[in-house]
Amino acid sequence: MSQYKAPLRDMQFVLFDVLDAEAQFQRMGFDDASRDVLEAVLEEGARFTETVLAPLNEIGDRVGCSHDKATGTVTTPPGFKQAYAQYVDGGWAGLTSPPEFGGQGLPHAAGVPLKEMIDAANLAWGNFPLLSHGATEALIQHGEDWQREVFLKPLVEGRWTGTMCLTEPHCGTDLGLLKTRAVPNDDGSYDITGTKIFITAGDHDFTDNIIHLVLARLPDAPAGSKGISLFVVPKIRVAPDGTVGEANGVRVGSIEHKMGIHGSATCVLNFDGAQGYLVGQANKGLMAMFTMMNTARLAVGLQGLGLSDRALQNALAYSRERLQMRALSGAKFPDKAADPIIVHPDVRRMLLTCKSLVEGGRLMGYHAALLVDIAHHSPDADERKQADALVGFMTPIVKACLTEWGVECTYHALQCYGGHGYIAEHGIEQLARDARITTLYEGTTGIQALDLLGRKVMQLQGAGLQVFLGMIETFCQEHTGNAAVAEFIAPLRDKAGEWQRLTMQVGQRAVANPDEVGAAAYDYLMYSGYVALAYWWARSVAASENSTQPEGFKAGKRETARFYFARILPRTLGHAAAMESGAASLMALDAERFDT
Amino acid sequence: MSQYKAPLRDMQFVLFDVLDAEAQFQRMGFDDASRDVLEAVLEEGARFTETVLAPLNEIGDRVGCSHDKATGTVTTPPGFKQAYAQYVDGGWAGLTSPPEFGGQGLPHAAGVPLKEMIDAANLAWGNFPLLSHGATEALIQHGEDWQREVFLKPLVEGRWTGTMCLTEPHCGTDLGLLKTRAVPNDDGSYDITGTKIFITAGDHDFTDNIIHLVLARLPDAPAGSKGISLFVVPKIRVAPDGTVGEANGVRVGSIEHKMGIHGSATCVLNFDGAQGYLVGQANKGLMAMFTMMNTARLAVGLQGLGLSDRALQNALAYSRERLQMRALSGAKFPDKAADPIIVHPDVRRMLLTCKSLVEGGRLMGYHAALLVDIAHHSPDADERKQADALVGFMTPIVKACLTEWGVECTYHALQCYGGHGYIAEHGIEQLARDARITTLYEGTTGIQALDLLGRKVMQLQGAGLQVFLGMIETFCQEHTGNAAVAEFIAPLRDKAGEWQRLTMQVGQRAVANPDEVGAAAYDYLMYSGYVALAYWWARSVAASENSTQPEGFKAGKRETARFYFARILPRTLGHAAAMESGAASLMALDAERFDT
Repeated sequence: MSQYKAPLRDMQFVLFDVLDAEAQFQRMGFDDASRDVLEAVLEEGARFTETVLAPLNEIGDRVGCSHDKATGTVTTPPGFKQAYAQYVDGGWAGLTSPPEFGGQGLPHAAGVPLKEMIDAANLAWGNFPLLSHGATEALIQHGEDWQREVFLKPLVEGRWTGTMCLTEPHCGTDLGLLKTRAVPNDDGSYDITGTKIFITAGDHDFTDNIIHLVLARLPDAPAGSKGISLFVVPKIRVAPDGTVGEANGVRVGSIEHKMGIHGSATCVLNFDGAQGYLVGQANKGLMAMFTMMNTARLAVGLQGLGLSDRALQNALAYSRERLQMRALSGAKFPDKAADPIIVHPDVRRMLLTCKSLVEGGRLMGYHAALLVDIAHHSPDADERKQADALVGFMTPIVKACLTEWGVECTYHALQCYGGHGYIAEHGIEQLARDARITTLYEGTTGIQALDLLGRKVMQLQGAGLQVFLGMIETFCQEHTGNAAVAEFIAPLRDKAGEWQRLTMQVGQRAVANPDEVGAAAYDYLMYSGYVALAYWWARSVAASENSTQPEGFKAGKRETARFYFARILPRTLGHAAAMESGAASLMALDAERFDT
Repeated sequence: MSQYKAPLRDMQFVLFDVLDAEAQFQRMGFDDASRDVLEAVLEEGARFTETVLAPLNEIGDRVGCSHDKATGTVTTPPGFKQAYAQYVDGGWAGLTSPPEFGGQGLPHAAGVPLKEMIDAANLAWGNFPLLSHGATEALIQHGEDWQREVFLKPLVEGRWTGTMCLTEPHCGTDLGLLKTRAVPNDDGSYDITGTKIFITAGDHDFTDNIIHLVLARLPDAPAGSKGISLFVVPKIRVAPDGTVGEANGVRVGSIEHKMGIHGSATCVLNFDGAQGYLVGQANKGLMAMFTMMNTARLAVGLQGLGLSDRALQNALAYSRERLQMRALSGAKFPDKAADPIIVHPDVRRMLLTCKSLVEGGRLMGYHAALLVDIAHHSPDADERKQADALVGFMTPIVKACLTEWGVECTYHALQCYGGHGYIAEHGIEQLARDARITTLYEGTTGIQALDLLGRKVMQLQGAGLQVFLGMIETFCQEHTGNAAVAEFIAPLRDKAGEWQRLTMQVGQRAVANPDEVGAAAYDYLMYSGYVALAYWWARSVAASENSTQPEGFKAGKRETARFYFARILPRTLGHAAAMESGAASLMALDAERFDT
């Protein structure tokens, strides 16, 4: 079984030494978010996730969820329900929700380390509370007063959970095709009818009620994506006065058998005249849903991060214990039968790759969360606007890169185990299977790439990129003459310049041929992620040198940054060359000629 | 469920249009290996694998093998045993084995397409007959006359199967640590005692007997890898006169629960005074085993290739059917609700990546197999020597690259399915799980990399590399002025030159610091694979232009080669930069500082 220990020291380093989170929160008016409070949250979160959630990860995978066709009910793995009760009792559900609905009102970024811990400890379990946040946000932003009154408190307290019901059998990415219908009733409610698939946490035995946020079409709706409305549809009917009634017309058709996250119920939900209420404006549902999706995408990025960290922790422990072969430069532990495999350069390559992607990725992910707070709560309107542009730009990068790196890190970690990694009992292959969903749901990597290049760069004229390039330049200027980071400044500046050039280049090409956007998108996305990480690594070194961290910690940051610049950042060369080669080699081949 | 259709046209193209296999086989004295015979083998192989093996792939995964603790017997999934009987009845088992032991005497390379088809159709099933080949080869090369007499005919005919028993709980890569003991008896036999793990096809219900080839230590053996001997240990005792006796002292302790290849029994075998016979010289067992391992490594490379091809086939079919979004350059199928996703550049990127790795990889793999034949059967001693050097050099590249690309291609294929790819019923996630073993067994990618750079390049002074570079230069010279491949000549020559330079560079560094070999090995391996594939793609285009293949086929080769040079070959840039950065960034960090 794989182990998990929350990386508290690095989380604190990221929050306090690099991002200066306490001061940031204070100036945004989060008076309760002092360092003491945040550290207490981290420590309690670590205790809960390490001792309650992590031990359930393996049984969740082995037993999975089950669906009783006769009653339509879903049963979660042993221990999951009890763990959820502890989560609710501990007040974790509403950590960052508004106090007026029973939340604790901490900033968004203060909830992110807890999120990472949950994902690392037990990704499948974490999917149950995760979707409540999306539902909560949709109702806060778009719900009517009575809807907020009735639904939000139980959601925030965790007494009910939420879902997002978008996908249908024939459409996922292309929601404009969706068919679920909403027919108005005289009492202001709607009858919702249709089939939704891939509904994460679509049913379970944790709570008495589940609040589905459902996309559907009104009878007079325009075709395509401009005719989609958002509805709130409880599993058990809830009247506008809050009275809880009978079972609603929504039933679990089946649950999916999946590659991983077996402990998470992925449901087919059949809505058959289920009673629902319109949320926000008619035909504006897709926009409302996209608001939720941005937060959900950052959250899925954290899933990739959490799994990467857990995989690394276990691979590291194994690599220190497993004795096999002697170091090429001579025995390092001559008293042992062989050297631990961590002496071998290639094992170090895999571990350092994970370490550089995990620690750099943590900064990138936490910073994006801080931007969400700044975009909403900064007292400075200009800063809010810049943060909003930057978080829009970073969201697809965080989502796609942290999940792609999740796949990569679980791959390396498993590889460190050799054949033992393939055996279920070590628990590492579960992490690899679980990680595989993260590059798919909430928009595949390809969709993130199009969002980044097509929307955030082309449509929005690269506003977010310019903010980020400004941050890089500011950093480089501020640290001219700082010996601790001198070696990183020139390569970072070079890459920033190249990033800008490549962006211009693809923009010019896209004017002539729109396929150039799709052709460059993936490589542009990964390129951006690697340059962003170079910036965060340089900042990590600067911040650690400037901190009261022990010398060993500083050395860890310094050497990992060097490794990153020497061995990971050069991946940008291949991505740049692929982008520069243009769309021709992708588009030339007739679809009929792909067969061998 | 995923489908499989043997890629006969491309297999024929590779064998006959590119490698000129018929003429090669004829000049080596394989008189029966005419094109007609080889094509009949391909067609019958396709029929068998498509109709018998492929349909059992899903049930093999779902039901898996089971182990009865009480009786110690292993039961294979439904249909597996019957399929094996058909395989034996069809004469497939001995296709490339010597006629004197009941084989059909076809060249090694003629068996390789069948191998690829089996792996693609049903990897787990394919592991049962696979290991017989290793045992057969070990006995042919190292066995005494009576051992060949007694064991080979049933193995070649498929009436018995074989295993390779190397790994023990505390040692895999480092076989010098192994503990299994062999104590001589008065009658010339040995009592074998010890525990072997990860024994593929270690037990099953296909045949009456199983012939284990076991590594163990004699009582007076030197310590380490120079004290290991090879023994033949049947599951049911066999006397030197061929009399089959009682059950031997070998028992299945358990079977592993694995990430994939559930239909393949991976056994813990407990040898408890089992009767065995020494094969070859005492204390020379590791060398004998390595002979087998080279062929096994090429065979595992083919597993990666087969899985990649099946994954691509299914992703391609899905991408043509699945309607989602419109092409960025305007609707391509305005009469449909949306365009098939194959119109989107990013989907094409994934499909073309697979296509270029599969078809290029097929050439690389088949050519290596042809080299095995040439190394043994060429009438020209110098050619035999060169082929031997080249196959030694190419073996780790074929094994590691084809399996890494297998992981990558199953990744891309799954990604084309979006969320549906994560659902078991589509069968694509099984291919991804199955592929994951191939970079581990028969030596991890890291071990292949050390074999390539440490042994084949450094110890053997790069003899194989020089042969390959010679092939590239010959090709470039022969095709100067050939308009069909003109665009590929200069980049290919550049890469060949760089390959040589990088090899020299790491060689010089390694003199000063042996860690430089381990530090560069992985990137050197992948770099080599990509340059080798560039050569094979250029040769593919030249050969297809020169062939009677239809224009559509030629266009497919041409455009895929262009894609490969534009978008895959640039990966060498990152690998070269990583190599050039040297060992320092890998070795600097103290093992205690890896924790976050």
